[in-house]
Amino acid sequence: MKKQPVLYEKERIDDLLTHELGIIQSDEVFSFSMDAVLLARFAQIPGRGHVLDMCTGNGVIPLLLSTRSRAKIDGIEIQPRLADMARRSVEMNGLTERIRIREGDLRELPKEKDRPVYDAITVNPPYMPLTGGDLKINPHQAIARHEIHCTLEEVIAAAMRLLRPGGKFFMVHKPQRLGEMMTLLRQYRLEPKIVRFVHPRIGTEANMVLIEALRDGKPDVRIQPPLIVYDESGSYCPEIMNIYYGPKEGEA
Amino acid sequence: MKKQPVLYEKERIDDLLTHELGIIQSDEVFSFSMDAVLLARFAQIPGRGHVLDMCTGNGVIPLLLSTRSRAKIDGIEIQPRLADMARRSVEMNGLTERIRIREGDLRELPKEKDRPVYDAITVNPPYMPLTGGDLKINPHQAIARHEIHCTLEEVIAAAMRLLRPGGKFFMVHKPQRLGEMMTLLRQYRLEPKIVRFVHPRIGTEANMVLIEALRDGKPDVRIQPPLIVYDESGSYCPEIMNIYYGPKEGEA
Repeated sequence: MKKQPVLYEKERIDDLLTHELGIIQSDEVFSFSMDAVLLARFAQIPGRGHVLDMCTGNGVIPLLLSTRSRAKIDGIEIQPRLADMARRSVEMNGLTERIRIREGDLRELPKEKDRPVYDAITVNPPYMPLTGGDLKINPHQAIARHEIHCTLEEVIAAAMRLLRPGGKFFMVHKPQRLGEMMTLLRQYRLEPKIVRFVHPRIGTEANMVLIEALRDGKPDVRIQPPLIVYDESGSYCPEIMNIYYGPKEGEA
Repeated sequence: MKKQPVLYEKERIDDLLTHELGIIQSDEVFSFSMDAVLLARFAQIPGRGHVLDMCTGNGVIPLLLSTRSRAKIDGIEIQPRLADMARRSVEMNGLTERIRIREGDLRELPKEKDRPVYDAITVNPPYMPLTGGDLKINPHQAIARHEIHCTLEEVIAAAMRLLRPGGKFFMVHKPQRLGEMMTLLRQYRLEPKIVRFVHPRIGTEANMVLIEALRDGKPDVRIQPPLIVYDESGSYCPEIMNIYYGPKEGEA
């Protein structure tokens, strides 16, 4: 059952452009980026089972995943303000039976008794190490962007412990950290299997990387075709249009 | 001084299409592939200094590198038959002052006294582990393609020991092994810095990866624009034409 949401100051409801889903956003607290949308489409989650989205923010990834799978989806978010936004968005879309938002620290999750064992985990973690970058932004954005509450290693270590053997891990990150990512994933027995790089234009360096890793998998990486965001005229390429707005009529 | 080469049965001289260079090849023993040409162009070797090409085969990479740098280039090859082909090609092109071909085992090189310390190392190693693939090809090709005389780890370990701190390592390999590559490079203090994937066509998975690593570098990877080999009509893309045949008149 859909529920009319309470909106706080400077919050708005944005259209997720698919399945009539809406999402509560705020420029001052949290708005999702293309990274989350691309990860939600990249992630081949199972049709049933139990999925976890770590660092879920305002819940954009669980909401998008719910359109492609009947799995139960948990989202965990450390910031109470964001977890509350996510929870209100889930209620607004009538998805409380399928999506559960938890406020909490993902590093503590593996220690819980009777915790679920997940079939798949997605994560759009903070990209920047604490040593670099400008922290003079507001605290909500700082936590979302910088490794203040969890490092890349902590995210990966938690994912390994929470996944069943053979479970899949999907992450979006910055290509700059590909070396660390690969090393840490393999150290925690999450074998990288599928990698896709996102390039703003055909002739530019990648500015995003999507990775699928398999718990206890064998080494064998496939590099998918590059995902190009803008064409030469500065418009979204057809694949991006398709990801955001769904296929055109007559297309698969 | 150029020297007229001795050619053995079934050997031929192919044109390297640049700087009037020729190369001795044989379909039964060794012919270079696109991988070597792309690596030679990808590798930003210093204008002076000392460069090593490991697994040099018939010497195609040293020959191509000699057109872009005044560095001294050593090539090491374990197969006597191939090292001899390479040496005759170097003599034929009058490059004996700049290119030295050594027959030997790259794993033994770091142990030698008075060995050079290299500024850059290139390698197009055997791609396939011994456990997989069909070994029922002739022994020359088997050694070039399979990890019979050196594994990926042995190549990387030798490179680390032979490079000066801050020296650069350039490798071409199969994307399937990207995870292992990244882990081993970082384990041996060769930090991946620049990666380029080669895709046969724009919409296909990568079938080659070019990597530059820096000895004792800091983690920071750049993913270059994808290198696409064929256009939609099945012709080489302009960048590939440029790599093989040099820029068209009027182009840089």
